[in-house]
Amino acid sequence: MAIEDEVLRRIRPTPEQRERVDRAAKAILEAVREKAREKGLDIQIMLVGSVAKDTYVGSPDLDIFMLFPPTVQRKDLESLGLAIGREILKDGEARYAEHPYIHGTWDGLEVDLVPCYAVKDASELRSAVDRTPFHTQYVNSSLKEGQHDQVRLLKLFMKGIGTYGAEARTRGFSGYLVELLILRYGGMREVLEAASSWRKGETLSLGERGRPFKDPLVFYDPVDRDRNVASALSVNNLALFIHAAREYLSRPSLAFFFPNERRPMPLSQIRDVMKDRGTELLVVHLDRPDLIDDDLYPQVRRTLDGAVDLLERGGFVVYDRDFYIGEGIQMAIELERAVLPRSVRHDGPPAWIDNARSFLDKWRGKGLSEPFLVNGRWSVMVSREHPQAVGLVLDRLGQAALGSGLRGLEGLTAVSGEDALVEENRRVISTLLDKRKNWEI
Amino acid sequence: MAIEDEVLRRIRPTPEQRERVDRAAKAILEAVREKAREKGLDIQIMLVGSVAKDTYVGSPDLDIFMLFPPTVQRKDLESLGLAIGREILKDGEARYAEHPYIHGTWDGLEVDLVPCYAVKDASELRSAVDRTPFHTQYVNSSLKEGQHDQVRLLKLFMKGIGTYGAEARTRGFSGYLVELLILRYGGMREVLEAASSWRKGETLSLGERGRPFKDPLVFYDPVDRDRNVASALSVNNLALFIHAAREYLSRPSLAFFFPNERRPMPLSQIRDVMKDRGTELLVVHLDRPDLIDDDLYPQVRRTLDGAVDLLERGGFVVYDRDFYIGEGIQMAIELERAVLPRSVRHDGPPAWIDNARSFLDKWRGKGLSEPFLVNGRWSVMVSREHPQAVGLVLDRLGQAALGSGLRGLEGLTAVSGEDALVEENRRVISTLLDKRKNWEI
Repeated sequence: MAIEDEVLRRIRPTPEQRERVDRAAKAILEAVREKAREKGLDIQIMLVGSVAKDTYVGSPDLDIFMLFPPTVQRKDLESLGLAIGREILKDGEARYAEHPYIHGTWDGLEVDLVPCYAVKDASELRSAVDRTPFHTQYVNSSLKEGQHDQVRLLKLFMKGIGTYGAEARTRGFSGYLVELLILRYGGMREVLEAASSWRKGETLSLGERGRPFKDPLVFYDPVDRDRNVASALSVNNLALFIHAAREYLSRPSLAFFFPNERRPMPLSQIRDVMKDRGTELLVVHLDRPDLIDDDLYPQVRRTLDGAVDLLERGGFVVYDRDFYIGEGIQMAIELERAVLPRSVRHDGPPAWIDNARSFLDKWRGKGLSEPFLVNGRWSVMVSREHPQAVGLVLDRLGQAALGSGLRGLEGLTAVSGEDALVEENRRVISTLLDKRKNWEI
Repeated sequence: MAIEDEVLRRIRPTPEQRERVDRAAKAILEAVREKAREKGLDIQIMLVGSVAKDTYVGSPDLDIFMLFPPTVQRKDLESLGLAIGREILKDGEARYAEHPYIHGTWDGLEVDLVPCYAVKDASELRSAVDRTPFHTQYVNSSLKEGQHDQVRLLKLFMKGIGTYGAEARTRGFSGYLVELLILRYGGMREVLEAASSWRKGETLSLGERGRPFKDPLVFYDPVDRDRNVASALSVNNLALFIHAAREYLSRPSLAFFFPNERRPMPLSQIRDVMKDRGTELLVVHLDRPDLIDDDLYPQVRRTLDGAVDLLERGGFVVYDRDFYIGEGIQMAIELERAVLPRSVRHDGPPAWIDNARSFLDKWRGKGLSEPFLVNGRWSVMVSREHPQAVGLVLDRLGQAALGSGLRGLEGLTAVSGEDALVEENRRVISTLLDKRKNWEI
């Protein structure tokens, strides 16, 4: 327990931090109320999220919700909500999740000012944000003395191992999910102990369960029993959390909460690793389109899947792949080899099928062999259209399944072998090759 | 039809040939009868096979059967039969099919003297040879005027394209099957026309059909309706015959009956072909064990299948393979590449399975990467046990499924790449690379 005490000592908000956060929250709430009064609006103003729940770690976002009556038109809700937000946050800018809100800063703290509908219960939701106030109320009325710190511990553990955050970039555990896990099991240790024997498809709840889900982990939302709070969690992050829980319980360490920074491998080390393995890297670059992360990451994953599928159908053996999004998009694919023989066996119909003749007419005297029979089927050695992985990707990636924002393949380049082992690819190659867990760095 | 007339002109036995064959047959039959009388044996002596049926091509074997009454003990039948055979054929030697017989020569003709049982009908067979007299009687009583020449034509066509002979070496059409096909369809052209639209699993008969068979071609034996006369035929030879039939009908040529000799490719040409393809050859040699062809060929095929399976399980991509049996056994396998990367991805259990820990304990810090998660399963890059096809075959072929006569792997050698392209491998490599049909040479 000494480790967890030490972690809490480091992350529990100090009285000064608390005071600053509370002051800012109070001031914004007051300012929003004033604005609403000015505009003659009958709306409820509510502090939600981790500050309202006292479960934040580090410098928190302030989430202020403006709850409009359901009689207000959606259009008016959006324009009024954005107007208030802009007037209060000097540097505020509109952002768009399921519907728009204003993001800005106040006294150095990140602030979201979000308009939503004040619905009576979760069955009447008009959009996902309408659910947030219910979550805040649920957690606030359920968390017991001391559990706030347990939430903080588990959040930091999740951050440390790299599974915190439900956004598309991470595909991990949301803050609300962490809170529900603490409510379900009591404390961080208890969550880790339970997770040690979780299986894929583990199904949890704090009350009634609704329709079945097929996600890697299911946690029925206590305020909306037909929603899986863990729907964003990837199977890899579930596996990683299970693994980390077991590791931590057998060898607790501060490194799970405060991992060292991961540094890209030096090129010389990359060369050594590749020489040891005898495999080859293919690195594909694309320009980064003007998309928010929640759109960009899924599209990059789809594009990388498409590239891997393309390569495999082209006869290449893919060992591993990963991507890194910085100024541009970089995808690294480890191949058994990046250049295949110039020929390939092309299998045709059985000899007793009527269109055997057209296969023979097509290939007689034109292949790298005469047609020959294999178990009664015609085959012929033919020139491979794309013996080079680079050529295949450059020529055909446009036809592979791609995210709409990447369909133009702006800035596409591809290199393999020694050409790939250059400074600008160091980061993505490190992402691929460095398989240490965060707490092992 | 001019081509078939020309073929018949060349192969129909001349009066001098006929006279010689008939004289020899008569003399042996008389000699055997005399011997039987001397020994006080009450046996029937019968000329069977293609001479008896007048369907032979070229210099025929003389097949003389000695039909013993079923009351004679098997042991006595064998010893008496072999004794008579040895006394008549000065150079005779015992051979063993399902039971023993004497093979020798008489006046320059090959002769088989075969003891068998005189059974009343095919349902009482004691061994497969007992069926032969029934076959001879059936064909003799069924073939019409002119059909003998049609049998000769189809036999020579089968020989020319390489599908004649039911023995394990060839896995083609037996002489009896050729005769039945002529009886079924009338003449050679009619057989080829029918074969043009055969399918795999084609089922033919000249009377009652017995139990079902799953062979590529089924022809119910008219003297034993539960036997498939075509059981030895491989699917490739069925396909080749269907193909040759179509080809011949659209472009008849003497080359189908009298193909040119196939010559091994010069090494320089082999080098050019391999350079064009960019693939690599693996050539495996084994000593030739002291086995008859009917045992040897299936064992070599099984061994080659085992080697291919071994290579594929080892990560090698096999394009093609073939073998040649001369003084020794040579097997050639065309590979995408003969050397693989030194590493391979080794996939383990999902992270939520209990034995995930033992996978991690085994590989942590010991692989070519740390263990990493792929769709929730642990994987790790490890050293490949056999990056070289040659090493894999030398090390493991002994564990692959092998024919019993080859299990010792006497004289095993394996070479690949440039080392394989040497004079002594020219023959087997040509067998693999030269995909021209016999009539295209």
